[in-house]
Amino acid sequence: MTQVAYLDAHYTGSMRTGKMWAAAATFNTFDQDTVLDREAFRQHPVLVVKSGAIGLQHMLGDGRQTISVIYFEDEVIDFRYLGRVSGKLVCILPVTACLYKGDDFDAMKHDNPQFEASQSAGAARQQYYAAQHSVDLARKSAIEKLASFILECRKRQNLGRALTVSLRLRRTDIADYMGLRVETLSRAFSKLKKMQLIDADETDEIFIRNEPALRQLANGRTIGNRTCWK
Amino acid sequence: MTQVAYLDAHYTGSMRTGKMWAAAATFNTFDQDTVLDREAFRQHPVLVVKSGAIGLQHMLGDGRQTISVIYFEDEVIDFRYLGRVSGKLVCILPVTACLYKGDDFDAMKHDNPQFEASQSAGAARQQYYAAQHSVDLARKSAIEKLASFILECRKRQNLGRALTVSLRLRRTDIADYMGLRVETLSRAFSKLKKMQLIDADETDEIFIRNEPALRQLANGRTIGNRTCWK
Repeated sequence: MTQVAYLDAHYTGSMRTGKMWAAAATFNTFDQDTVLDREAFRQHPVLVVKSGAIGLQHMLGDGRQTISVIYFEDEVIDFRYLGRVSGKLVCILPVTACLYKGDDFDAMKHDNPQFEASQSAGAARQQYYAAQHSVDLARKSAIEKLASFILECRKRQNLGRALTVSLRLRRTDIADYMGLRVETLSRAFSKLKKMQLIDADETDEIFIRNEPALRQLANGRTIGNRTCWK
Repeated sequence: MTQVAYLDAHYTGSMRTGKMWAAAATFNTFDQDTVLDREAFRQHPVLVVKSGAIGLQHMLGDGRQTISVIYFEDEVIDFRYLGRVSGKLVCILPVTACLYKGDDFDAMKHDNPQFEASQSAGAARQQYYAAQHSVDLARKSAIEKLASFILECRKRQNLGRALTVSLRLRRTDIADYMGLRVETLSRAFSKLKKMQLIDADETDEIFIRNEPALRQLANGRTIGNRTCWK
């Protein structure tokens, strides 16, 4: 199942800001469901997601499965510091990624204060998403979780106030991430539609019909107009 | 409720490794339940916990409360990057902390590769705990969560294979962190005692009686000898 395809070509990546990165990166593509075995990343242990999504997947002893962290575009996985993490990294969408040698990546940070600051901010953002995700998992109902997830997707795709959000992930992956069974997640989708908070068809596009109410629900507040609930 | 007491004294902190830190730090103590308002940290936005624990506390709209992240000894809170975090930082134990100016802290990292590496490793460790915490919250039962929490405490207190672990936190804080009601947490304690996995009295000391079984339970595996369950 492990599949790691190095390309020979070297590629000088560019940040979204348009700044060129100082060091040469190896540019790679991985099929959906590829497991990123950390041994294969010994030479290039820093991975920056350029498109797609990578999940940190965990299997409990009896087969219950969860995805604890999702890495989207421009997020960084540093295999050097993953030593004790028990899960495995899986491409939950087809992925393109830049890989860097550890020394190159450290030197880029050291030599470029702006890049260093963007990396610190990125790491802090990851911590923020992790904290928010814990709040979602700890005490929220299925529909509250789904409302949160839709808003998280919008934020992490930098869609601003857009009302159309592509969830992109497979339903099983969303369920694993939100700590729900797939059937429970399906019922939550139906319920949000019935409540007229969202429209969703068979594709992964979600149209937000009532943003204030969706946000209220995501934040665990009772929704004012209860008639929309039935 | 907000209480931030700066001391006049300056203090040069030392890492656990014995290395002296390059820059002067302000050394502070905070009572239990002090809220660390980020405005008060404008001048010294980098906080390193030296003793005690700080929780990132969130209140859902209807009053449900959670603690998404706990910062223990030697863990770092950088207020500069907390801008979008919705929760508030609360001392869930009495805390002593070192505070650094942002520039000083950045310069320490920049000038000292060893310190920089230790900070990167620390940030990665925080991510690891966050991922592990998500796994705990997503799909585990109350007794599985409590088993995980006991082992997390042991690990984060660097107790190695010790069989006596001080949980230190109040039961309400543990419940908020593990996404449980206090009564459910109490029942989980009773159940682990009945299963002869732990001993616990009214203090916060836990004695691990059957470590392999506690670990199995934490990892969601069925425990072999079912007779210990009743």
